[in-house]
Amino acid sequence: MTLTGKMLIGQHAVCGHREAIQAINPATDQPLAPAYPGGAGEHVEQACALAWAAFDSYRDTSLAARAAFLETIADNIEALGDELIERAMAETGLPRPRIQGERGRTCGQLRTFARTVRAGEWLDVRVDTAQPARQPLPRADLRQRHIALGPVAVFGASNFPLAFSVAGGDTASALAAGCPVIVKAHGAHPGTSELVGRALAKAVKDCGLPDGVFSLLYGSGREVGIALVTDPRIKAVGFTGSRSGGIALTQAAQARPEPIPVYAEMSSINPVYLFPAALHTRAEALAQGFVASLTQGAGQFCTNPGLVIAVAGPALERFVATASELLPACAAQTMLTPGIFQAYEAGVSSLAEHAQIAAKGLAAQGPNQGQAQLFVTQASAFLRNEHLQAEVFGAASLVVVCANDEEVRQVSEQLEGQLTATLHLDDADLTRAQALLPVLERKAGRLLVNGWPTGVEVCDAMVHGGPFPATSDSRSTSVGTAAILRFLRPVCYQDFPDSLLPAALQHANPLLLRRLLDGQRERPER
Amino acid sequence: MTLTGKMLIGQHAVCGHREAIQAINPATDQPLAPAYPGGAGEHVEQACALAWAAFDSYRDTSLAARAAFLETIADNIEALGDELIERAMAETGLPRPRIQGERGRTCGQLRTFARTVRAGEWLDVRVDTAQPARQPLPRADLRQRHIALGPVAVFGASNFPLAFSVAGGDTASALAAGCPVIVKAHGAHPGTSELVGRALAKAVKDCGLPDGVFSLLYGSGREVGIALVTDPRIKAVGFTGSRSGGIALTQAAQARPEPIPVYAEMSSINPVYLFPAALHTRAEALAQGFVASLTQGAGQFCTNPGLVIAVAGPALERFVATASELLPACAAQTMLTPGIFQAYEAGVSSLAEHAQIAAKGLAAQGPNQGQAQLFVTQASAFLRNEHLQAEVFGAASLVVVCANDEEVRQVSEQLEGQLTATLHLDDADLTRAQALLPVLERKAGRLLVNGWPTGVEVCDAMVHGGPFPATSDSRSTSVGTAAILRFLRPVCYQDFPDSLLPAALQHANPLLLRRLLDGQRERPER
Repeated sequence: MTLTGKMLIGQHAVCGHREAIQAINPATDQPLAPAYPGGAGEHVEQACALAWAAFDSYRDTSLAARAAFLETIADNIEALGDELIERAMAETGLPRPRIQGERGRTCGQLRTFARTVRAGEWLDVRVDTAQPARQPLPRADLRQRHIALGPVAVFGASNFPLAFSVAGGDTASALAAGCPVIVKAHGAHPGTSELVGRALAKAVKDCGLPDGVFSLLYGSGREVGIALVTDPRIKAVGFTGSRSGGIALTQAAQARPEPIPVYAEMSSINPVYLFPAALHTRAEALAQGFVASLTQGAGQFCTNPGLVIAVAGPALERFVATASELLPACAAQTMLTPGIFQAYEAGVSSLAEHAQIAAKGLAAQGPNQGQAQLFVTQASAFLRNEHLQAEVFGAASLVVVCANDEEVRQVSEQLEGQLTATLHLDDADLTRAQALLPVLERKAGRLLVNGWPTGVEVCDAMVHGGPFPATSDSRSTSVGTAAILRFLRPVCYQDFPDSLLPAALQHANPLLLRRLLDGQRERPER
Repeated sequence: MTLTGKMLIGQHAVCGHREAIQAINPATDQPLAPAYPGGAGEHVEQACALAWAAFDSYRDTSLAARAAFLETIADNIEALGDELIERAMAETGLPRPRIQGERGRTCGQLRTFARTVRAGEWLDVRVDTAQPARQPLPRADLRQRHIALGPVAVFGASNFPLAFSVAGGDTASALAAGCPVIVKAHGAHPGTSELVGRALAKAVKDCGLPDGVFSLLYGSGREVGIALVTDPRIKAVGFTGSRSGGIALTQAAQARPEPIPVYAEMSSINPVYLFPAALHTRAEALAQGFVASLTQGAGQFCTNPGLVIAVAGPALERFVATASELLPACAAQTMLTPGIFQAYEAGVSSLAEHAQIAAKGLAAQGPNQGQAQLFVTQASAFLRNEHLQAEVFGAASLVVVCANDEEVRQVSEQLEGQLTATLHLDDADLTRAQALLPVLERKAGRLLVNGWPTGVEVCDAMVHGGPFPATSDSRSTSVGTAAILRFLRPVCYQDFPDSLLPAALQHANPLLLRRLLDGQRERPER
């Protein structure tokens, strides 16, 4: 398949006329053809008009048809074969196994949402039947289901060119909910975006859906991004990226005449707690696990362990010593873009001003290679200096040495919202962990015991979210099947004749849903 | 019980020192003792500190204990007896049966949330068990539940001095979710607020809960209201009132360093569609039902039918003629406050500038009495003039005469978000109604057939919400058991030892919840 450098407005390939985006191979600093001329206001206008025209029809598709569409997208992405893998590798500097794994996750995610759509629990159907004889007033027949919010703008992420980009988690969950999607491609991987976008647009056609179910735009955040978020036909936004970017989109969405929800996944340093007994028993093993998690994928994960918190003592010294022995053997790794590399360099420089350096990985051998770095500071310094909890995107981490449990608690209370918090503990630590748990529940969306935060499972129970600034909306997750709930709103139907009701609410329960019927769960045979 | 004019900060009665709020009996324009000196920043500070101190402990109460607390509040409100009824009547001008009915709804609502808390479905527990042998990577054990967001600020509404005030729907659902609540009393009914506040604070004590679970403040919106919404310990806001008030609170909440959700129920004109066959068959009966709904409670309901939409013709003329015959026999009714009466007068003056007056109710006999008014305009004028869809809070309504179905559709598409939309139809209208339904689903939170929108049932299926500006968050309802979902966020626990897990997530399912276990619903015997 020849890359065209064109946007997709529905089924139409359209060339932009603003400054072109061109991918750079971060391993070589060489540009990758073709150039992608940026879109402008009229392209946003066309894509939004098409999405709006498609909305009522698309949200009315049957659960089976919508699930089949999601599965067709997965099939079409797989059918791209090695071309997709190679383009994504070239655009991101990520190794083949990682990109292959990410393709597996992306297609698995689409198929998981297909199962979720079919099961229909997300409709949250509630039926309260009429009570005509009730005193003092009769009760009407009331039936609730959830419907799609409207067309959704999705902003692809740099660090997951497949799993959180054009056909990634935000797109999959919005399409699953019945929302048309307009993606603004991330400028770092436009070719990957075009390939996946064409696979997705082909699925729209294969399934006989209206054109406007999907569009793909290129262009600047200031022009195309803000135009998308402020278009009155866009009803929600999904974003994964920087704190400043997420806040800018959220503010633009709130300033609209009709404000809309923005689901921005932004910033997290993912504290890791090393409790005393665990640290005493296995400081060295913990250091090994930590370094592996820290340096995985050049540290370019939202869930990278950027903070380690423990009480001072010989065991913590063993941990830091072991990590400091291991780190100098870790090769520098190509980062996703020159911009991300430069931001990483600036971030570690800032850390170096405020904390002591403990160890560095191997020096860079080529362009844009991030060198892992480990810093140490005292809790008292951490508590005084808010710079020390700024996210440094990449393989940098800071060990905060606390004088005692009380300082561990103070440091924890001072943390901003997080995606994850990790507890390494042995049985003898359980009381301490139990005492800290209420604080951590308030701070993070996912709590882990004796594991590492990198690696996010796509399943029913996952929460990839958390209090601000981890995300802009702590009530949601952007990974896992509950992500569909972000793009829905409830509608209640009162005293409707059965023939006018949507199938999910009809008396005979033709979709065989487990509805809440007069306070009891139905148990239809499926 | 002697009214004291004091605020409640936890269990402490505290006197404010800012300008006093004093209720006015709107039927007589006479002030009602005592005066309620307004609170200031330090009272907000104290109440927030107390609420924050109570939060971890309160959210950790068992489902049974929390349910018992809600039931105790209901018992304590009922124990206030006739004193509450009489004070509320004096402060609002509402008649005894209405206030008695509202007390019943308020206590019923608290008991309904107690049942909801016990059932525990709101925890939305999802369990994905470990798959240690999975290839290429093992799956961790992942368990999700929902926890309370944090202390919630509730702003009482003028038009429901019990059901949407101190112990009303917002408070009940926030307490049910595990959130401490700080209420800012509405200035129109401070005595009613004190009585209910003391009943609620007594329930906190009766149940042995920490003081900070509930506080009650008086004062100005600009000082106390904004201080509450911007306090970092407040994590969500519930509000029912004007569009300008709701928007001001939402903007203040969004401008915080950590933005928080605001659930503001603001503005709705509740379109009523009269389809041709129904109108032909029973124009006169429809007019009777309409006038009754319009004038109920002086029209002071969020769901008041402020807009009637139909195609021109003899049947619509019969409807308008009958309504115009009935209205002049409708007595003027005392409105809730002098301010609301003045706003109503201004609103009908504005309507009179842009539309034709069809009929008026009986003229006022005393102060602050709202006179029902019916206006008529052409769809073409309505489409040109946005003033015509401004909410006029009170018994005023506008008939929009459309040339044909297409104009009905245009008018519908131009409507702002609504709490309700009502369809009056016969069998012969079903095809027309079906065609309009997708538009109405996009516009409103509740759709009714052959009823009237006033009267909101507290049940599982109710949606009292809708797209902006009906509410600030269309993803939620402020009435019904789903209102609890507004004050929760998901937390995921990965590879936790059973002893460290909250009861809802433990292996043995001690709370007997219908959890989603590896994609299947558990069916514990309860």
